[in-house]
Amino acid sequence: MGVSGVGKSTIGNLLSKELSIPFFDGDDYHPKENILKMSKGEPLNDTDRLGWLQTLNKLAIQQLKDKGCIIVCSALKESYRTILSATIKNSTKWVFLTGSFELIEKRINERKGHFMSSDLLKSQFSTLEEPKNAIKVAISLTPNTIVKVIRKELENTAEFGLFGLGVMGKSLSRNLASKGFNISLFNRHLSGKEEDVAVNFKNEFKELATALPFDDIASFVNSLQKPRKIMLMVNAGKIVDHVIEYLLPFLDEGDILIDGGNSNYNKTKERFDYLTSKHIHFIGAGVSGGEEGALKGPSIMPGGHKEAYKKVQPFLEAIAAKDANNMPCCTHIGTEGSGHFVKMVHNGIEYVEMQLLAEVFLMLTAMGNNPDQIATILEGYKDTANSYLLEITIDILRKKEGDDWLVNKIMDKAGNKGTGNWTTIATAELGVPSTMIASALFARYISFFKDERIAASKHFSTTTDANLDLSVAAILEAYQFARIINHYQGFRLIDEASARYNWGLNLSELARIWTNGCIIRSDFMSGLVKTFKTTNNILTDKDIISTINTLKPSIKKVVAACILNEIPIPNFSESINFLNGFAVANSSANLIQAQRDYFGAHTYQRIDNNTNKFYHTDWKNH
Amino acid sequence: MGVSGVGKSTIGNLLSKELSIPFFDGDDYHPKENILKMSKGEPLNDTDRLGWLQTLNKLAIQQLKDKGCIIVCSALKESYRTILSATIKNSTKWVFLTGSFELIEKRINERKGHFMSSDLLKSQFSTLEEPKNAIKVAISLTPNTIVKVIRKELENTAEFGLFGLGVMGKSLSRNLASKGFNISLFNRHLSGKEEDVAVNFKNEFKELATALPFDDIASFVNSLQKPRKIMLMVNAGKIVDHVIEYLLPFLDEGDILIDGGNSNYNKTKERFDYLTSKHIHFIGAGVSGGEEGALKGPSIMPGGHKEAYKKVQPFLEAIAAKDANNMPCCTHIGTEGSGHFVKMVHNGIEYVEMQLLAEVFLMLTAMGNNPDQIATILEGYKDTANSYLLEITIDILRKKEGDDWLVNKIMDKAGNKGTGNWTTIATAELGVPSTMIASALFARYISFFKDERIAASKHFSTTTDANLDLSVAAILEAYQFARIINHYQGFRLIDEASARYNWGLNLSELARIWTNGCIIRSDFMSGLVKTFKTTNNILTDKDIISTINTLKPSIKKVVAACILNEIPIPNFSESINFLNGFAVANSSANLIQAQRDYFGAHTYQRIDNNTNKFYHTDWKNH
Repeated sequence: MGVSGVGKSTIGNLLSKELSIPFFDGDDYHPKENILKMSKGEPLNDTDRLGWLQTLNKLAIQQLKDKGCIIVCSALKESYRTILSATIKNSTKWVFLTGSFELIEKRINERKGHFMSSDLLKSQFSTLEEPKNAIKVAISLTPNTIVKVIRKELENTAEFGLFGLGVMGKSLSRNLASKGFNISLFNRHLSGKEEDVAVNFKNEFKELATALPFDDIASFVNSLQKPRKIMLMVNAGKIVDHVIEYLLPFLDEGDILIDGGNSNYNKTKERFDYLTSKHIHFIGAGVSGGEEGALKGPSIMPGGHKEAYKKVQPFLEAIAAKDANNMPCCTHIGTEGSGHFVKMVHNGIEYVEMQLLAEVFLMLTAMGNNPDQIATILEGYKDTANSYLLEITIDILRKKEGDDWLVNKIMDKAGNKGTGNWTTIATAELGVPSTMIASALFARYISFFKDERIAASKHFSTTTDANLDLSVAAILEAYQFARIINHYQGFRLIDEASARYNWGLNLSELARIWTNGCIIRSDFMSGLVKTFKTTNNILTDKDIISTINTLKPSIKKVVAACILNEIPIPNFSESINFLNGFAVANSSANLIQAQRDYFGAHTYQRIDNNTNKFYHTDWKNH
Repeated sequence: MGVSGVGKSTIGNLLSKELSIPFFDGDDYHPKENILKMSKGEPLNDTDRLGWLQTLNKLAIQQLKDKGCIIVCSALKESYRTILSATIKNSTKWVFLTGSFELIEKRINERKGHFMSSDLLKSQFSTLEEPKNAIKVAISLTPNTIVKVIRKELENTAEFGLFGLGVMGKSLSRNLASKGFNISLFNRHLSGKEEDVAVNFKNEFKELATALPFDDIASFVNSLQKPRKIMLMVNAGKIVDHVIEYLLPFLDEGDILIDGGNSNYNKTKERFDYLTSKHIHFIGAGVSGGEEGALKGPSIMPGGHKEAYKKVQPFLEAIAAKDANNMPCCTHIGTEGSGHFVKMVHNGIEYVEMQLLAEVFLMLTAMGNNPDQIATILEGYKDTANSYLLEITIDILRKKEGDDWLVNKIMDKAGNKGTGNWTTIATAELGVPSTMIASALFARYISFFKDERIAASKHFSTTTDANLDLSVAAILEAYQFARIINHYQGFRLIDEASARYNWGLNLSELARIWTNGCIIRSDFMSGLVKTFKTTNNILTDKDIISTINTLKPSIKKVVAACILNEIPIPNFSESINFLNGFAVANSSANLIQAQRDYFGAHTYQRIDNNTNKFYHTDWKNH
């Protein structure tokens, strides 16, 4: 498009050859009446143009069924362009040739057999409404250069879109771009708060040279190849629904939205169903690894339709961390909210892993070690119990500020972002005793009541640093024990959800994608890849049984000592309490059943009757 | 109503004098055309009757604005009665005078100046459609007796309705009736399963002599004085919504529904809002006490509008248990779902109280005591730690079956009805660490995996009955300690919900209505009535602080010994772990905050800066 004399036919023909798609000159499609009118020197009005523009639109629709085409047409007004691209708006690319009045006038007058009055050209310029989303090329360049510029711009259609450029969105964007993908970046415009976020971000990193930055939603969506693949990196919660509604009018059937935030799996199921009804694919993808993981290779847990997953697989697997066999730490988890469910449990396991290290820190401190000494002790734990969280804990403990350690200056009120809370709720709802996750969550809650804690510490005298007679080795063994129970409980919860929701989850694959990139990667996790190939219940694995029995004396000793010394180790304590309760053929629940029957006539079953018969007793009469 | 000659005018006039309300003879309201037609001996058709019936309907509506009236009219067809009672169906009482053909014919022919052909009377009998919900009286009685019977039936309008005659519904009904209330009873008709439940129930107990039994919803609702007060005693869940929808068409503005089941407080809030929009009052009432409590006096926790509560107060307070000062164990809790919330937490506390006794049972068993010996030991606990649950546990332990104790025959898989689950979810959602309730819930979950437990017991050898060197007195002290923490946590959760939802709950009043009737009544609860008058946090009460510090050595010793001997005491353990974590001015959560900042850039606050400033550190560079 462009005013008369701008060189549309020349460039169009060259581009046609360059791209090997047909060329059509719009002027060839005028009806007889228009030709007659023009031949009389009378200008066409919009009514004259309507049928003609519709003919060109039909031509374009027809050609799109094959490999598309190039059509030249001045198309000066937005209303003309609307008719020309009717029903094929998202498949239409506008190329706008532009130059100064003087240059165009000079060029026209140089052409053989052509004459255009200065007034006519002026009228064209005044009619021209510049398009907003066109590839705009200056005709001062040579024709060959112009064609090259257009070609480059056309090829720049992005393969993958990132919506939301927070910490995680930015890191994933750079990761994708560094793998050679053409991506589009979107961040909203919020006056005074979020302005030119995408543009500035693109300019900041050289791997983003070919990335297309947007703060206009239509342009962002239209910059993407179809089916479009858009990853939402926004905060979990209502905002995800708002973003979906915001995007929907611009999407086409078959497009794929990926929610890469920590959304609640129930919400993901709802969104999955909602978008399926609109023929949009929805993938709820857990992403673990934090800022650095997202940049260098996270663990990714995508849930949704397998067919949709296949279309985003090349992107997600390319950016994911690699396991020991160089396989991506990314796999199709299952349908519906399964990806976010396993990410949630991942975070639950993470809560416990962090809490256990905090409790180790507490015990070693009570034994008189300073943070540097504790870091050195933890270095020694790497041989038998290495993990990402152990490594960063060592880094943290060594960080000094002046003469003191920085960790000593940090306010001891732990935050939580919802996933620990949700895991505890899921464990209650699914009837599975993931006691350690609940205990780790509650430890954070307790930490939060700082003022009440200070008051309580004055009333209830503690005697922590007195007689804690524990060895570093015993604490290590207790730590290993507690971690085994934690992993048992976390995977048990996943297994229960898999059965309940018919997700058919593969625990070994889950352990595998958690061997790198994610926060809970560890040597123990690596070992579980093999364990889960033969059982879904690690407490039935011969090696693990043997390990537990070896470690048990230490966990018992450590927990008993800490309780006697009033050192709060709720998670260590929970690990042995769980096994003590779980490894009991006959529990004390018979008394509870009798109590329930006594006051509520809830009835009970008998150990000497397997027929599901229920009994009720009048307990008062002896 | 009734056929010609049945004596409607005579009885109507007598009744009018008896009840001091006006009398109207329907025949006096015929329009001229009808009178003319009848005067010619032509029978009226339904078209002739329409306007006349409408006139009588208007008369009734008019009179209802004052004190009502008596209208006599043959009203032989259901369609006539529909017109007569249009818009005032619920305020209309039909009295149907009935007798044999021969008796009526004889009486007509005895009247002076009256003659009715045998054919005409036959035609009336064949036209007659007998009403279903009328007061039906035989005219073979004397007129004075007839009037007395009618008066009695009219006065028998019920004050309170019970919907659903399960274990709890039946007990509450008998309780209400025994307090002298006129009640209506409803139970659905389910062919082959629930037939004549209400009638049979009424016939079974003499206190129900004046109770009105129904399996027809319209008759049940219409039997009640307005505003109607209907207590639903159906299973919690979707069924409550179905029952509400089932009842709604028959209710009038201002009627009051009471849900006496264990409904989820969130659902109660939704139903409260829904019914408020329909101008129906909704009261979500927790009822505790089991079958026996419901019969002899439960603890009742009604939540809803105070104005609505006042209307049901006389009923609920009359049937509730009485506290030590003879005040009813029933009080208006607050609005919305507050009644069901506190009932839910009541049950959470109950879970823990039961679990603690099960753990005591386990310890005393491990020390070599049989159930009878344990019962004797628990008798000794009554002096310092008496409670309803302790008492029933003693009964249970003494129950023998042949040479063995019955408790030994009970399947050790504990059931749960949802409230423990909900309390754990509420504690997670509200950010309050009610760790013992979660732990008691999970203990039941663990018990449920009987097969896995048996397998695990073989792999992980236990050494329970070896060296458990504990005194009965130490276990009692540990038990007392754990109960204090349980009550602290339960009331803390209620206090948090009260603040969050603006319920303004009165903890002392709650403790008071839990001193009798309910499952968790105990001497300790009685003491809390006074404690909560000065503080909402019992861990700041001087006496309780002193008690805790006295008991602490025992809980530490007991828990440490059990862990070393692999006796599962998760709830005892949780109680001391909680206090150990809570009574710490500086917790290990600083390390967790550092970890979160390290991998997720979540930032942290500092102990040397109170300005809510957030810091982020690059932890890797030392």
